[in-house]
Amino acid sequence: MPVETINWVNGKIKFIDQTKLPDKLKFVYCDDVDRLWKAIKRLEIRGAPAIGIAGALGAALGVRNSKAKNFRSFFKELKAITKILASSRPTAVNLFWALERMEDVAKANRSKPVSRIKELILEDAIKVITEDKKSCRAMARYGANLIKKGDTVLTHCNAGGLATADYGTALGVLFEAKKQGKRIKVFADETRPLLQGARLTAWELMHEGIDTTLICDNMAASLMAKGRIDKIFVGADRIASNGDAANKIGTYSLAVLAKHHGVPFYVVAPISTFDFKLKTGRDIPIEERDGDEVRTVLGKAIAPKKVKVYNPAFDVTPNGLITAIITERGIFNKPYRISLKTLKVKKLKTCL
Amino acid sequence: MPVETINWVNGKIKFIDQTKLPDKLKFVYCDDVDRLWKAIKRLEIRGAPAIGIAGALGAALGVRNSKAKNFRSFFKELKAITKILASSRPTAVNLFWALERMEDVAKANRSKPVSRIKELILEDAIKVITEDKKSCRAMARYGANLIKKGDTVLTHCNAGGLATADYGTALGVLFEAKKQGKRIKVFADETRPLLQGARLTAWELMHEGIDTTLICDNMAASLMAKGRIDKIFVGADRIASNGDAANKIGTYSLAVLAKHHGVPFYVVAPISTFDFKLKTGRDIPIEERDGDEVRTVLGKAIAPKKVKVYNPAFDVTPNGLITAIITERGIFNKPYRISLKTLKVKKLKTCL
Repeated sequence: MPVETINWVNGKIKFIDQTKLPDKLKFVYCDDVDRLWKAIKRLEIRGAPAIGIAGALGAALGVRNSKAKNFRSFFKELKAITKILASSRPTAVNLFWALERMEDVAKANRSKPVSRIKELILEDAIKVITEDKKSCRAMARYGANLIKKGDTVLTHCNAGGLATADYGTALGVLFEAKKQGKRIKVFADETRPLLQGARLTAWELMHEGIDTTLICDNMAASLMAKGRIDKIFVGADRIASNGDAANKIGTYSLAVLAKHHGVPFYVVAPISTFDFKLKTGRDIPIEERDGDEVRTVLGKAIAPKKVKVYNPAFDVTPNGLITAIITERGIFNKPYRISLKTLKVKKLKTCL
Repeated sequence: MPVETINWVNGKIKFIDQTKLPDKLKFVYCDDVDRLWKAIKRLEIRGAPAIGIAGALGAALGVRNSKAKNFRSFFKELKAITKILASSRPTAVNLFWALERMEDVAKANRSKPVSRIKELILEDAIKVITEDKKSCRAMARYGANLIKKGDTVLTHCNAGGLATADYGTALGVLFEAKKQGKRIKVFADETRPLLQGARLTAWELMHEGIDTTLICDNMAASLMAKGRIDKIFVGADRIASNGDAANKIGTYSLAVLAKHHGVPFYVVAPISTFDFKLKTGRDIPIEERDGDEVRTVLGKAIAPKKVKVYNPAFDVTPNGLITAIITERGIFNKPYRISLKTLKVKKLKTCL
């Protein structure tokens, strides 16, 4: 059973500081919005669904000591909190989805006493966690149907338990396939610059007893050319209405390579990762991070100090390169602009 | 003017320990074949042409104190030395070419006194250096014709002065374009696992005043998708008769991405890098190196200690993905099996 990444424990947000893995499994107990903001910014908490959970819990945390006497001033406080949290990272839409959801809970209960609204927000934030656990397991079951006995799978970055409440999106699929006795092998891209693949994915897969081999990102093509990769499974940080999917930098590269080599390329993501306000991936904001993430590795300099750096944290894979998108509501196929419409309706019904 | 990477100075091989760059510019004076073997193995000296030079000088170094009284016993000693040096790294053919060349010098002068053969070997080893300097500059001139004013070029690993005697193959082209006032911009792939791009290429390009931006290997596709890369120039470690080219791991990945995005992909290499004994790239031996190179970065652990690793040092780019091959004898185009035939004749005439 994968370890619990983020939860609400004794009035605090308990989370794993993922910057310390795989060396140390360090839990942080956080009761402060600014500290939480820093945790998201620094990637102590990362992965789109986990960031969503952090946002929901953070909103609940931020208003629980509110002294507001009426809804109007309470909502103003809530908005100030969600604004802070929303400024932590721009790409994963799950964050904005979760923050909006907390605001919606408040608005839907505006006639209730402020103390009750606070309770309801916290209840709903905790519901985001239970929903995430459920949807990860549903995605895992759908996705595992795509995996054959003995398949060798490639994955990029970390779409595991550490990117969600506890089970994972792309890695959840692999955990389920393993449970079904499919004896898979997995190659994990190390995923520069922050090495989520080497530090987190390799750790999680080995923890689950899956046959794991670590490679540098630039080695994937060589494996595909040798016919050693049967399928690729990755997560996503934001998916537009047409199926264009933003995910960790390097994902697009893999998708192009997959097309060239005829390797199926699957994206696994919960409904909260879809942004139906956006028509295409061109509109997804791509975070650019500090150049020192590239100039150094875990604090050690690897390049001339003054060299310019280009450090986008994500790229966008166009829908045409995606074989299928696996969600908790089933597997969606091309053309996504049409197939995803049913998902949009479901999202409106269930999530808002 | 790029710094001198390897030379014969006062009876010793003087070389830069490239594992120390860009932190320290440390020169090593080596008069011992075993130490030289280690320097090649550990990538203190790296880059196909530089390894070739090291091989030639190493052979001269190894026999200079020979007490052999006749050619037969001298040649036996020489063969023992070349066998040691040949075991250092398997992919770059320049090493084997240089060692064979030193053996050929001995054989061609078998009737001369051993002391004279030793001199002739050293003279020819030094000639390998001067030839390399010349051919780098010739490649640079041919290659620079392919570069337009304001072009943005992507390169991988280090094909610079540090990979040759002092000027470079792919980077030589960029130095020449700069000299011609073409105001180019260069993106340098960091090139995991040993970061030759971050440590060496960025350092060399900045040293020459070229506008340089460092990226992680997995970011190149994202730049190509944005139309920000006009051309790709890389070196090679061994090129087969049909133009298939082995080069640093990740090169093949770039070539596939270049094709997908319509970006011209050029290989720059001297004749000594061609292996006309091999029909295709399938026959090129690919070195697999220790997994700790991936599990660590400059000695710092970045992954679970026990994770399996796949660590090929090179990959092979099929000829179909190569727009042109630039040599000191001009630019060669497809179909390479035919165009390279003239080069084969030239190699036989001039190099053996």
